[in-house]
Amino acid sequence: MPLLERLENDPLARHLGVELLEVKAGYARARMALEPFHRNAFGLVHGGAIFGLADCVFQAASNSHGVFSVAVQASISYFRAPDGNVLFAEATEVSRTNRLAHYSIRITQEGDALIALFQGFVYRRPDKSPPDAASDARGAPA
Amino acid sequence: MPLLERLENDPLARHLGVELLEVKAGYARARMALEPFHRNAFGLVHGGAIFGLADCVFQAASNSHGVFSVAVQASISYFRAPDGNVLFAEATEVSRTNRLAHYSIRITQEGDALIALFQGFVYRRPDKSPPDAASDARGAPA
Amino acid sequence: MPLLERLENDPLARHLGVELLEVKAGYARARMALEPFHRNAFGLVHGGAIFGLADCVFQAASNSHGVFSVAVQASISYFRAPDGNVLFAEATEVSRTNRLAHYSIRITQEGDALIALFQGFVYRRPDKSPPDAASDARGAPA
Amino acid sequence: MPLLERLENDPLARHLGVELLEVKAGYARARMALEPFHRNAFGLVHGGAIFGLADCVFQAASNSHGVFSVAVQASISYFRAPDGNVLFAEATEVSRTNRLAHYSIRITQEGDALIALFQGFVYRRPDKSPPDAASDARGAPA
Repeated sequence: MPLLERLENDPLARHLGVELLEVKAGYARARMALEPFHRNAFGLVHGGAIFGLADCVFQAASNSHGVFSVAVQASISYFRAPDGNVLFAEATEVSRTNRLAHYSIRITQEGDALIALFQGFVYRRPDKSPPDAASDARGAPA
Repeated sequence: MPLLERLENDPLARHLGVELLEVKAGYARARMALEPFHRNAFGLVHGGAIFGLADCVFQAASNSHGVFSVAVQASISYFRAPDGNVLFAEATEVSRTNRLAHYSIRITQEGDALIALFQGFVYRRPDKSPPDAASDARGAPA
Repeated sequence: MPLLERLENDPLARHLGVELLEVKAGYARARMALEPFHRNAFGLVHGGAIFGLADCVFQAASNSHGVFSVAVQASISYFRAPDGNVLFAEATEVSRTNRLAHYSIRITQEGDALIALFQGFVYRRPDKSPPDAASDARGAPA
Repeated sequence: MPLLERLENDPLARHLGVELLEVKAGYARARMALEPFHRNAFGLVHGGAIFGLADCVFQAASNSHGVFSVAVQASISYFRAPDGNVLFAEATEVSRTNRLAHYSIRITQEGDALIALFQGFVYRRPDKSPPDAASDARGAPA
């Protein structure tokens, strides 16, 4: 399966309702329409749902060069609880060497209000093909 | 609805299959049986699913004192891709003042192998009742 | 002592050779000429020196509104070892509420090459005067 | 120069007054007696000084296996301002693969009160000798 199609069929992305809008070299953008299942025990949008959206564009942007890349570290800062119906996430590449790359992701709602910032590092595997999802690959990639 | 019941009915936790095992003052523990929807485009357990599990015990532990608490920052480090069928997360309280509290969360699989570490800060609102989820509360709590 | 003068006389900043270039509301910029004492055991610029520079503009920007602010969390990502003679750091305010504020800091060298990114949260104390350094204040501000 | 001697002569460590107490495989411990130059504009111990101490044991523990290792990411959470005269830092290895390793560092004061927690990732270079500090090595190691 070609990479873009794979990314669009990412199972967790589908489960969370994350829709990839654009993927190009070192860049990805997505949207997530808010559903009742995105909320937490207090009715607010769950931090885990916001992170999940960001993580999907992080994965897409970091794998956009065709080199299998796995997340090693991520940080998220939350600035305000969303009060709209849709969230957006946009990943840009801050740095990339042969083995490591770093992405910054802005999570916004309608009107471009900033909801959260996400920073993530991946370890790149130019020596290794990505596992084939169809074979239900499991195991430690790093 | 009492707090524990609320936490157990957290909509995202249910959507991700997170089951709270224990909640006490400054502490929470949960499990998540891995399903196909937890995987990423490469068939590995998605970083966003691992974070989601951790975030649920973070929410439970930080709200366990009965003071409404909202996440402001979280970091996760991934050490190995899970190769089992179940993940566990355990949150312990590292520090707590009137307004801020910090939690460390270990994510493990069967056999106690360490999968990831999560660190998170909450802002505590002793002056404010948590929004009532039933009223579909929305808005910026900080 | 007025705030700006205080910040310029920050003892650690002076010890590390950090020179504040500009401080305005929600913003600060500084430079640090590299000295032999900034290096690590391998002759590279020490991560702690890069963080120290960033932390000084973080402190200046977060206190620029005249509200006493203390750091609660910071993250730094390093992209390349500096190979020039001077480092610069620039802090911008990403978010600010009554009690919490977040700053992003870019650390660069001559030619604007990105060396590191720093993200930090402060807890703001609108209710409290900053301790007076002259009295050798000590103690937990949060 | 042997590794341990190098680490003990780390220029920034000496400039900050960091004294290595113990270094063994995957572990390091140090102390820093607080001096006036460790303080910030408000007379409190500077976050950059606390980070600097932690970074020194991070460097020592991550290079303790004899494989040249460079920091790629670090996070620090501050829990209380020190009110004693000495700080201690202790680094333990949480995870290590061929290329990546993660360390947790506790920063405490007399009486073992927790001041801050530091988490850091290094990229390991089993293929590369560390630069020789004596030759004033500079340049991007990753």
